[in-house]
Amino acid sequence: MPFSFELTDRDPSGARRGRIVTDHGVVETPAFMPVGTQATVKSLSPTDLKEAGASIILSNTYHLHLRPGEKLIAAAGGLHRFMSWDGAVLTDSGGYQVFSLSDLRKIADAGVEFKSHIDGSARFLSPESVVDVQLDLGSDIMMVLDHCVGFPCTFEEALLGVDRTTLWAKRSLEAGGARISRDGYERVLFAIVQGSVFPELREKSALELIDLDYPGYAIGGLSVGEPKEDLYSMAGMVAGILPENKPRYLMGVGFPEDLVEAVARGIDIFDCVLPTRNARNGTVFTSRGKIILRNAAFTADFGPIDPECGCYVCRNYSRAYLRHLFMAGEMLGPRLASFHSLYFYLHLLDRMRQVIREGDFSRWRREFHERYGTDLQGNI
Amino acid sequence: MPFSFELTDRDPSGARRGRIVTDHGVVETPAFMPVGTQATVKSLSPTDLKEAGASIILSNTYHLHLRPGEKLIAAAGGLHRFMSWDGAVLTDSGGYQVFSLSDLRKIADAGVEFKSHIDGSARFLSPESVVDVQLDLGSDIMMVLDHCVGFPCTFEEALLGVDRTTLWAKRSLEAGGARISRDGYERVLFAIVQGSVFPELREKSALELIDLDYPGYAIGGLSVGEPKEDLYSMAGMVAGILPENKPRYLMGVGFPEDLVEAVARGIDIFDCVLPTRNARNGTVFTSRGKIILRNAAFTADFGPIDPECGCYVCRNYSRAYLRHLFMAGEMLGPRLASFHSLYFYLHLLDRMRQVIREGDFSRWRREFHERYGTDLQGNI
Repeated sequence: MPFSFELTDRDPSGARRGRIVTDHGVVETPAFMPVGTQATVKSLSPTDLKEAGASIILSNTYHLHLRPGEKLIAAAGGLHRFMSWDGAVLTDSGGYQVFSLSDLRKIADAGVEFKSHIDGSARFLSPESVVDVQLDLGSDIMMVLDHCVGFPCTFEEALLGVDRTTLWAKRSLEAGGARISRDGYERVLFAIVQGSVFPELREKSALELIDLDYPGYAIGGLSVGEPKEDLYSMAGMVAGILPENKPRYLMGVGFPEDLVEAVARGIDIFDCVLPTRNARNGTVFTSRGKIILRNAAFTADFGPIDPECGCYVCRNYSRAYLRHLFMAGEMLGPRLASFHSLYFYLHLLDRMRQVIREGDFSRWRREFHERYGTDLQGNI
Repeated sequence: MPFSFELTDRDPSGARRGRIVTDHGVVETPAFMPVGTQATVKSLSPTDLKEAGASIILSNTYHLHLRPGEKLIAAAGGLHRFMSWDGAVLTDSGGYQVFSLSDLRKIADAGVEFKSHIDGSARFLSPESVVDVQLDLGSDIMMVLDHCVGFPCTFEEALLGVDRTTLWAKRSLEAGGARISRDGYERVLFAIVQGSVFPELREKSALELIDLDYPGYAIGGLSVGEPKEDLYSMAGMVAGILPENKPRYLMGVGFPEDLVEAVARGIDIFDCVLPTRNARNGTVFTSRGKIILRNAAFTADFGPIDPECGCYVCRNYSRAYLRHLFMAGEMLGPRLASFHSLYFYLHLLDRMRQVIREGDFSRWRREFHERYGTDLQGNI
């Protein structure tokens, strides 16, 4: 079945609901993708992910390229079989990690030269080779190599990033197109809008990429340290330019309030390590905001993490037990906390899809912030 | 329903099958108890334990007394509710850990003075107080405080341990009896036979404790460094003295071949950290012996851990994937390996119960060793 995106509901607020069809299942949008960096969402099994409500996960090309290598994963039958996940998979291009994790040696129009953060070995990735790596990994949605810039950066740096990202997006298309069938299922390629916090560059980047008619568009280079106002305004501005009939993916975002605000601005897809990374440190998300499980106040608190949550963890365990697990350094603590927080995120998206269908997003959005302790702009 | 033990099958070899009934379910024997030291079997949920085939788990009084404390667990409604486990629970007395983990200050007939290995605080446990602690924990089967001696030890040291263990077993009985009903279910107390590797002391210890008519008997002070021959001969000798109609628990044993050999000698219950501790380090048990998952030979081995195993892990994951998880330091590795190895242990016991019922234990025992790579005496 070819990849498709259909917009099913438009809320007066600008929030939208849709469905992405892949050969590994349907993804209802707005959607959140748990992050499985090294072909595993840390501490959780695919059974857990399904139970928490995930239909698509993200895995990181940079990490898998370095270890265990895409050839091994191809030999295993691809990421789905390797990690025993039969839902959809999106892989990033590795660009962001090359810029943030590796010892970056040289960046040029040809591609990026870097040293592995694991063993120091010299590596080279080009727009063409990152697609080849992702074809070996076997993801349903692949991302083009983009040139990320940090925050803050100059207009000239951001412009260079935009121009090179467009160049690479063209070369990716020329190499094999944006829809590639292999091993009996279709893989599609999404382009990534850059431009830092400069509206004119964001617009230029979006328009150039729209011309290339990719099946989907991501907004990259945000959530890298810029103020929340910039995050929201850039996401909203770019979403306003992108075509209605293509999915819009805001990369690496974010806190629950960020998801709500971005959905209000017409974003369809998210990924973020926050729910699982924070959970491993003992901080979990609830309908009333974050709580820190090691807090002494929970020593004899025999209520669930979130009284409004119906997840396995909230049905079976107390804050006191979870605190004990974290204080005792027990692995079950990070596991149960990760499950809860992912469930919280995935059900937050589920709730947003409901209220969009009911045309009631604006009212719900106000109530969410009131309950959660944030405001409409998402400031805490 | 009061605690009961019924012997249902006797194999010509001496192996026996039975059922323990507790207010938290039936435990078919021979049985293996996964160890949940700190009110959690490391990395696994109670749902996993049930799926792996566990009906009873062990938890450690020493650890729980120090953290989070038995009063907190009592306030939570007992261990079953605290950790969300509705099967049976056995708690040890803490004696073994006081002797092996703590900074032991003084041991006398009154009890043991020690310093916590967590915060250095001064503590005192007596035969009476360890029962009180276990009543707060809410276990179905409690253990008396015993005086453990290390290996090797002199005859005199072992004799002192036996005499004090008998004295404490008497005092435990005088304090509250061996069957105590509280919170709507019955808790029973087992005595522990000591005597190191001295047959005459083992006999003396067993006979003195049999006189006290406890509902069950454990064999302690083994698996502490003595040769395998001593382990097997002491276990067999003591089992031969203990009453037919009471369950026999061999504490802290052992490797799969040890379980087979001990069942052949009439043992009913086991506990051991080996399957889970080894799994966390990447060593798992299979029907053909142990394998080390980090081994480079498994890099591209897309078969299951054990082709003869039907567990969730063997049905869904390859050795190559598990190796990747361990090489990448991913928490899912220890979790999946622990699940597999516990399943292997619990199904080994299940198989033994089957062949005992069929009166075919001796033939099966030979075949087990042949397949597993050990010999009848259990030497590797």
